[in-house]
Amino acid sequence: MKTKIGILGYGNLGRGVEQAVLRNEDMELVAVYTRRDPASVKTVSGVKTVSTDVLDQGTEDLDVLVICGGSATDLPEMTPKYAAMYNVIDSFDTHANIPQHFANVDAAARAAGKIGIISCGWDPGMFSVNRLYSLSILPGANAYTFWGKGVSQGHSDAIRRIPGVLDARQYTVPVEAALEAVRSGRNPELTTRQKHTRLCYVVAEDSADKAAIEKAIVTMPNYFADYDTTVNFISMEEMKRDHSGLPHGGSVIVTGETGSTGNKHVVEYKLTLDSNPEFTGSVLAAYARAAARMNQAGDSGAKTVFDIAPALLSPLSGEELRHSFL
Amino acid sequence: MKTKIGILGYGNLGRGVEQAVLRNEDMELVAVYTRRDPASVKTVSGVKTVSTDVLDQGTEDLDVLVICGGSATDLPEMTPKYAAMYNVIDSFDTHANIPQHFANVDAAARAAGKIGIISCGWDPGMFSVNRLYSLSILPGANAYTFWGKGVSQGHSDAIRRIPGVLDARQYTVPVEAALEAVRSGRNPELTTRQKHTRLCYVVAEDSADKAAIEKAIVTMPNYFADYDTTVNFISMEEMKRDHSGLPHGGSVIVTGETGSTGNKHVVEYKLTLDSNPEFTGSVLAAYARAAARMNQAGDSGAKTVFDIAPALLSPLSGEELRHSFL
Repeated sequence: MKTKIGILGYGNLGRGVEQAVLRNEDMELVAVYTRRDPASVKTVSGVKTVSTDVLDQGTEDLDVLVICGGSATDLPEMTPKYAAMYNVIDSFDTHANIPQHFANVDAAARAAGKIGIISCGWDPGMFSVNRLYSLSILPGANAYTFWGKGVSQGHSDAIRRIPGVLDARQYTVPVEAALEAVRSGRNPELTTRQKHTRLCYVVAEDSADKAAIEKAIVTMPNYFADYDTTVNFISMEEMKRDHSGLPHGGSVIVTGETGSTGNKHVVEYKLTLDSNPEFTGSVLAAYARAAARMNQAGDSGAKTVFDIAPALLSPLSGEELRHSFL
Repeated sequence: MKTKIGILGYGNLGRGVEQAVLRNEDMELVAVYTRRDPASVKTVSGVKTVSTDVLDQGTEDLDVLVICGGSATDLPEMTPKYAAMYNVIDSFDTHANIPQHFANVDAAARAAGKIGIISCGWDPGMFSVNRLYSLSILPGANAYTFWGKGVSQGHSDAIRRIPGVLDARQYTVPVEAALEAVRSGRNPELTTRQKHTRLCYVVAEDSADKAAIEKAIVTMPNYFADYDTTVNFISMEEMKRDHSGLPHGGSVIVTGETGSTGNKHVVEYKLTLDSNPEFTGSVLAAYARAAARMNQAGDSGAKTVFDIAPALLSPLSGEELRHSFL
């Protein structure tokens, strides 16, 4: 009996989930659901595309629906809506709104007897789990999170909205000296500017005022003003050749003490990812397996990575896991 | 209501657990239980020492008993025995015997309605959890485990048993070139000798044949014969001054691919520990909290780190965890 997966939304993340499902032999990809005309959406795997009108009837034969939408407007509406019909999972990442989103999904999922996993991926997701493990083991420890080197799609989009910009790619880069200071266990206090720099590649219109574009970038509030930002203007050919991937990664570093003499401990969880959406999609696929199992066992309601025992992520039995991984 | 912890056995690990419990404000250390004359055992914290004869009556007021014994002979007997009376946790690490140990603890704990967590610490323990997470996210990936630089107490003891040796300390050292090859994602096949070297510091009797001792070490089957081993003879003063700590650590590195174009991903979990027993004791304390909670929720039987949701390790509520760590 394979776990039957549906994907809602077919952007970078939806395609990442599709690729992940293809690599999990105990999973079956049922369909990609889209708000667009299904005939206009061609999937990489060839799996069928189906209108959300069909999904909305609540009768699709799915074990889990993976919802690949944006956190700003899509997920707050979609995840509670579909949690009333299917087991669901999303990657909601607007931190301040997590309590409300959790409550909405919890109410809908409980009433329907379904599982709704929210905020899954690598941050929030695997980074969160690692913060929790390390800070539970080392009470009073300090947790530092560094991102990159990797492409921030939100920052890239922000640059693209500047008049005269044809395309842009923004890399978030951790400051090596800050990483080393943290890894040394010295517990430095670090400002936003001391932790990361921002590296931008911009394709401008020929007639554009590049100095004005650069100033608009480096002074942009929230996105760039608090960082040391470098802007490089390149050609469209260079953009396509050198910056078409979506690499990312980062580190969660926890430093704490034990004992009466203050022995120091450093725990680092580090990701180096060629493809942010494919890795995120792979995390979602593993947790989708857990969602199906938890629901089969009679559980319901909203869950996060904190609530899910690691064994539920693997297709292997408890006996096999103890033999191979313990 | 604090979680009431008892410690059975008061060697390095028992003292590490004691220190960990002192740093967890929601825990209370009830007693250290010993097979020796309790009057002869003085605890660092001043907590009372009690004979195992008292513990054996099964009437001690404990939420969890942390069993700090050796895997060779102590734990196979002790953990099932006490799982019939108390929630228990151990750090059993004889890999080949885990299925039998799990079955024995499971039978005893189930019959008594108690929880028995086995094989907890960092390896087995946190390293195991990280292997499981990463290999579940990246099907078909390769997992590499490196240990050190750190003191192996088993290897140090093996050297001490050689005639003419007064004291010894053995450091397991990962080979930097092997670490870098793995981190690059090249998926190298590595022999035992290629992954680690062994570095020994030995205090010999004045009259001892040092060449014979060195030969006995480097040719010792299982312990040293398969490794490049370096032996340094030092004075007792140097041993006490430079090698009195028990640092350890290591890395679990998982490298895998996603997508149709083979995007590569590297996940590394790295520990750098000033004190192996204090960190291991801290892991045991966090999982002892989970054992008490699982039992309060009506669960029983043998568990490993794979079966335990991360949220159970923390004194914080689900809401607090989502706010602070997600």
